[in-house]
Amino acid sequence: MIRVLRGNLISAPRLGKLDVVERGYLVLEDGVIQGVFDKLPETFATAPVTDYGEQLILQSFADMHLHAPQYPMLGMGMDLPLLDWLNTYAFPTEARFSDPDYARGVYRSLAGELIANGTTRVCMFSSLHTESTWVLMEELERAGVTGYVGKVNMDRNGAPGLLQESRSESVRETIRWLDGCRFEHVKPILTPRFTPSCSNELMTELGRIAAQRGLFVQSHLSENRDEIAWVRRLHPDCGHYWETYDKFGLWKDHTLMAHCVHSDEAERAAMRRSGVAAVHCPNSNVNICSGVCPVRQMLDEDVWVTLGSDIAGGDQLPMYRVITAAIRASKNRSIMDKWTTDFLTVEEAYYLGTTSGHRYFGAGEGFAAGDRLHAIVVDDSDLPPGGGPLSLIQRFERVIYLMSSRNITAVWSDGRCVAKKM
Amino acid sequence: MIRVLRGNLISAPRLGKLDVVERGYLVLEDGVIQGVFDKLPETFATAPVTDYGEQLILQSFADMHLHAPQYPMLGMGMDLPLLDWLNTYAFPTEARFSDPDYARGVYRSLAGELIANGTTRVCMFSSLHTESTWVLMEELERAGVTGYVGKVNMDRNGAPGLLQESRSESVRETIRWLDGCRFEHVKPILTPRFTPSCSNELMTELGRIAAQRGLFVQSHLSENRDEIAWVRRLHPDCGHYWETYDKFGLWKDHTLMAHCVHSDEAERAAMRRSGVAAVHCPNSNVNICSGVCPVRQMLDEDVWVTLGSDIAGGDQLPMYRVITAAIRASKNRSIMDKWTTDFLTVEEAYYLGTTSGHRYFGAGEGFAAGDRLHAIVVDDSDLPPGGGPLSLIQRFERVIYLMSSRNITAVWSDGRCVAKKM
Repeated sequence: MIRVLRGNLISAPRLGKLDVVERGYLVLEDGVIQGVFDKLPETFATAPVTDYGEQLILQSFADMHLHAPQYPMLGMGMDLPLLDWLNTYAFPTEARFSDPDYARGVYRSLAGELIANGTTRVCMFSSLHTESTWVLMEELERAGVTGYVGKVNMDRNGAPGLLQESRSESVRETIRWLDGCRFEHVKPILTPRFTPSCSNELMTELGRIAAQRGLFVQSHLSENRDEIAWVRRLHPDCGHYWETYDKFGLWKDHTLMAHCVHSDEAERAAMRRSGVAAVHCPNSNVNICSGVCPVRQMLDEDVWVTLGSDIAGGDQLPMYRVITAAIRASKNRSIMDKWTTDFLTVEEAYYLGTTSGHRYFGAGEGFAAGDRLHAIVVDDSDLPPGGGPLSLIQRFERVIYLMSSRNITAVWSDGRCVAKKM
Repeated sequence: MIRVLRGNLISAPRLGKLDVVERGYLVLEDGVIQGVFDKLPETFATAPVTDYGEQLILQSFADMHLHAPQYPMLGMGMDLPLLDWLNTYAFPTEARFSDPDYARGVYRSLAGELIANGTTRVCMFSSLHTESTWVLMEELERAGVTGYVGKVNMDRNGAPGLLQESRSESVRETIRWLDGCRFEHVKPILTPRFTPSCSNELMTELGRIAAQRGLFVQSHLSENRDEIAWVRRLHPDCGHYWETYDKFGLWKDHTLMAHCVHSDEAERAAMRRSGVAAVHCPNSNVNICSGVCPVRQMLDEDVWVTLGSDIAGGDQLPMYRVITAAIRASKNRSIMDKWTTDFLTVEEAYYLGTTSGHRYFGAGEGFAAGDRLHAIVVDDSDLPPGGGPLSLIQRFERVIYLMSSRNITAVWSDGRCVAKKM
């Protein structure tokens, strides 16, 4: 079935490049993009048109790192350093997800907020709990969020008796969880919490499962100086943090590593070589005082950089806020580097929060023909009165800085309209 | 007339100190605070009670630096450095305020947004234009915003033919403007844009007017390295930027200086000695890449620090967002200082955005008896489901990080309820 969307189309096919089509046409066949056009080709002349008028049609967002069971603690405990914050806030909060009924309520609310804010693709950490992880996947699926979810593995340095598994339990539950995943749009991803949380034996098993089942892997890397020193003590044979994953077959194409704030040139080169993607989480990095990630340098070195809200180390779920936070982090980085490094422009940060993340799921550049549509429709008419007619680029910048969920009037995910206000 | 407000009262009497009264009582007589009580004293037993239930009653915010005529460009031009941004964005936008009818629409919208976001006191820059400045004051007054507004003075280095005055015009219009100010809650403040914008002759006249009429002064100080170098070239006799104001009698008790990012110890000591207040504008400083203000150091040295949104260098009008931005700026500063300086806690940043600013207008500490009430009522029931019962301190932190105007159900300004949703 052919369907045409009309509006002001803005996408970021490549870093720093925007494709802008004023009052253009996006043609879908069964949810798959056929093309974006200035003028509607004759072939589609009789297809039904959804006209979004003067609204902007933007790419939806990909949130490549967030902790679903930390949603209840959003915006709290922000004055604590990472390891204290884990023990006094994150672990007790996650422990409550042993109750799938509790999980149902929280995850339904989270999934709804993701869609309301235009995030249609995620790579997400669940908790240790198999049942609640299925509940999370089900609620995402129901709301229209697509992507990967991981049951977390953690057999050491957690909170024994509260939030920790034995090795055998961790492996057994992981297999039970994987075997029970039957969701169309939400797929499993292996998720060792981070090196300090997983014994060598557990890591070995996870590496085996990843290989056997062809699964992607997500974890954390070089977030914080104390953590890096700890990893060094745990793995004295590894010169770099990344090698502690590599050793067990968990460092490979499409491995997703959150943070990488303190990754040096050698670690970044290992990422590039292996097709590992970094998830830059600017709000979290500043909230927990981890450091300021050298994103420009990573991009210059051709590292694959995506963005994550990292709730609840990050305090903002909306990815448009993470995009502006990434710009600000890059400006702080520039200031720290005595203004010698270029900051991220709005166009560049938007690319990182959209296409660069969508690529993880096999998507092409911007609104690429052949992709299932992931898009949001934005009504900016309630933003401050402009000082005159604004160009589409100006409206785009202003929307990225100022919008909130109330401005998002429709959300398309995997070719389906999953939310609309009209 | 006695009136009692009931709710969870949270105020910041001093830096780092919160006064929290659970389900307490705030007693008003003709808008003036009589006291805050755990239990309602017998004397007030028959007074009408407005019960805000489980909502939080917080101090309203004081925005000590913002440019009203830049509101139309909010969230635009953020990738430009300060001086380019002034010439290509700020000056042309401000020039449109030669038309008071245009001003009316923009300023009505701005004043409404300030109240909707709980900002009840401001120190604000208008444009050069006398009529539009009166319009601004009138619209603030009508919406319930109180404080100071300044017609801007600029007789050089503006945009000749577009946005610049002659010296005589600047003086004449300033006097005409001052003579025409007849507003109860919005008072005039002298506003030389910044040293590069004002000739020595104009500064001399402004110093004279300030002394004759007993007016406060607001301007900009040490925001950006290029600007500082420029000021040095303009005033080779002055070792420090601050002396270029002092020379003309504009550096005195209650002079308000925006930014002070690069003020050194000597300049900060001059602020402390003279009772000059700094306005820290964290969003603006990072957006324009000016630098990261050493706020902790200023506080340790007993400099009077307040907060400002600095729209439209800042992209966020709501002061709760400026408060979290100040926390983040202080964390970035800590990172830059290799984690040797303490960042601002939520309590401290809230103090800077409330009591520290309210002091400028003669207010006391927190909800002080004898002060006219400035407060907001916050309904946090639509925030993410907490992982259990939250303490008032946790709810407070979460509200500062996550609220938006939709959570603010009532606003009290100068003892009057100027907005309510119920």
